[in-house]
Amino acid sequence: MAEIKSLTCVDCGHGHQAELIYKCERCEGSLDVEYHSEVNGEEAEAAGKKESGIWKYRSFLPIAPNSEPVTLGEGNTPLLRMPSLEMELEQSEVYFKNESANPTLAFKDRALSVALTAAKQFNVEGVVTASTGNTGVSAAAYAARAKLPCKIYVPKKTPNEKLRLMKIFGAEIRLVEGNFSDAYLMAAQQAETTGWFNVTSTFLNPYAVEGNKTIAYEIHEQFGDVPDWIVIPIGAGPLLVACFKGFKELQLAGKTSKLPRMAGVQAASCAPIAAAFENGLEEVAAWKQPIATVASGIADPLTTYPKDGTRTLKTIYASDGCGIAVEDDRMLHYQKKLAKEEGIFAEPSSATAIAALEVMKRKGYLRKNESVVSVITGHGLKDLMSIQ
Amino acid sequence: MAEIKSLTCVDCGHGHQAELIYKCERCEGSLDVEYHSEVNGEEAEAAGKKESGIWKYRSFLPIAPNSEPVTLGEGNTPLLRMPSLEMELEQSEVYFKNESANPTLAFKDRALSVALTAAKQFNVEGVVTASTGNTGVSAAAYAARAKLPCKIYVPKKTPNEKLRLMKIFGAEIRLVEGNFSDAYLMAAQQAETTGWFNVTSTFLNPYAVEGNKTIAYEIHEQFGDVPDWIVIPIGAGPLLVACFKGFKELQLAGKTSKLPRMAGVQAASCAPIAAAFENGLEEVAAWKQPIATVASGIADPLTTYPKDGTRTLKTIYASDGCGIAVEDDRMLHYQKKLAKEEGIFAEPSSATAIAALEVMKRKGYLRKNESVVSVITGHGLKDLMSIQ
Ligand SMILES: [Zn+2]
Ligand SMILES: [Zn+2]
Repeated sequence: MAEIKSLTCVDCGHGHQAELIYKCERCEGSLDVEYHSEVNGEEAEAAGKKESGIWKYRSFLPIAPNSEPVTLGEGNTPLLRMPSLEMELEQSEVYFKNESANPTLAFKDRALSVALTAAKQFNVEGVVTASTGNTGVSAAAYAARAKLPCKIYVPKKTPNEKLRLMKIFGAEIRLVEGNFSDAYLMAAQQAETTGWFNVTSTFLNPYAVEGNKTIAYEIHEQFGDVPDWIVIPIGAGPLLVACFKGFKELQLAGKTSKLPRMAGVQAASCAPIAAAFENGLEEVAAWKQPIATVASGIADPLTTYPKDGTRTLKTIYASDGCGIAVEDDRMLHYQKKLAKEEGIFAEPSSATAIAALEVMKRKGYLRKNESVVSVITGHGLKDLMSIQ
Repeated sequence: MAEIKSLTCVDCGHGHQAELIYKCERCEGSLDVEYHSEVNGEEAEAAGKKESGIWKYRSFLPIAPNSEPVTLGEGNTPLLRMPSLEMELEQSEVYFKNESANPTLAFKDRALSVALTAAKQFNVEGVVTASTGNTGVSAAAYAARAKLPCKIYVPKKTPNEKLRLMKIFGAEIRLVEGNFSDAYLMAAQQAETTGWFNVTSTFLNPYAVEGNKTIAYEIHEQFGDVPDWIVIPIGAGPLLVACFKGFKELQLAGKTSKLPRMAGVQAASCAPIAAAFENGLEEVAAWKQPIATVASGIADPLTTYPKDGTRTLKTIYASDGCGIAVEDDRMLHYQKKLAKEEGIFAEPSSATAIAALEVMKRKGYLRKNESVVSVITGHGLKDLMSIQ
């Protein structure tokens, strides 16, 4: 079993005990779970033999061996080929990993399952989150399953379907004047005052971030190897960072010698990380231009935590990857194409992972004979109103 | 591999070749796929080793070994325990099989994946279906994936969310004056005139029905044995019938000696099969009383095909099972309970499979120490408007 060595600051390297903390006590950097030793491959398989979904990989997760997972059957989502796109792009192997097949229809369930299991271990009295939608729905569902109260701070303009879902799962909703950053600060304050577990899905909660790693183990198993490219829609980018960490762990465990190149995709009108990449910068700055995109799930200007963007940018560089910005009309085009030609209804944010491919080809990142996996992060049904 | 012996009439036993037919040429009875010999257990595992979801079990399906499945990653849905209900009902083991985790959020995907794969084998020019919602959405998605046109006949009152989804997947929708029976007749006529494959999910299409069997293999694998009871919401009942057939095949393959008892659940205001069971009848009659239920997915009066109800009733008897009618207020109560206490948002039709348990206990069918699996057939998100 992977035993936690420390929650290590990604900026200054300072280590902390595995407690209810969210940032470095020295420099306020975000924290990453570091383990005592790499997981032994055979041991890992034995540990998860009786579990399914992400809990098959529990030896890679920061959860005690005797803890009962808070699970709704998340993970184990399909990896499917996309022949129509292979033809259109003249690309040999294009796959999509359909994360909309998770219990609350988004990849967030991986993170929230681990976060709520950690919450039970910490014996907290409740969980709190800031959200623009998907995280709130997932947090509400997993908190219900864990029998813990859940408080969600959301910007007032959050789509009505998502608010209704949070209520159906019994969460308490606080509508916040302003944007996600305002909700973020209020959730952080609530967590500090009450001791509730803050499961906001930026890089804030290191346990939640670890849950996202499981997508790497699944892609590795389903693809039968490591694809050349993995394309992921990003706000702050915890899924991209965790996915790459997962592949590095597989490498350390001796399961692969190759690492994938990571492409992070953003909407052109809110692209702090992609812009920093394009300009060859070392650090990401908060996005100050006006934001006008239908990709509400990833439109994060990083106002309160630009360093989270830098953490993702570093991972992109480390993987020899790229940051890509796509226009709304292209993402809507590919959202329709994906539905009409492949039978998958992705939310607009997710369609960016498909729309990015033509840009990656044009810019010379993606070569004809390379294999690529695009991650469909969430289902279109949850904000049906974005479709005309 | 299971080779098709014939499409055998369930009423008179007459056998037909595996062609594009939907009923017995002698007596108009519905058809069941009969195979040359039972599937050998080890052979079965070898055949599906590289496939995932329902296609792991392809040797049990009426599809040629060299056919490429039309798949969206259906099946392989979670089986989860329901502690809150075990406590409330004082019942030792209550599980739910979450079919809302399928690609279009309903169990229908199992049937449509097999039906569209058969459609490609038959080389048809298109598929047609009658639907009250879920089947149409699933048919539209799988037809898109198969690159075949899809025409859907729906009653005018079909929920708007479901119509929009069908359109997003590129299907052609025909709004029909009247109820499902009227749509059913028009779809049948269209199939006859054009030669398109009729994938309507009653017992009409024997290939589609076979897809439903795969739920039995999964329950057997996940539960590690055969549960005492399986509880399934039923309109005409193809899922219940196919599920029991799947367990009988497992028995023939030497994988289990026990069969489950099958409970079929209907809404009290449209319960032709449950009423026939309660009155100890041998045949089901079409439902003539007024229908007023939120369980639109299963509110089928069987007007055009009462014999389909009889086929399901016979399976219930054969399994020593029961037919149960539940009131709308109880299904809505359990829909809320399931969301707030277990984090699962089921459509009202599906919540009948939970609401049935208290009735089964009261009537003495379900005993305290028996294990029970309730099938959550579809997601609540697709008709959010039914929730207050
Ligand atoms: Zn630090
Ligand atoms: Zn006959």
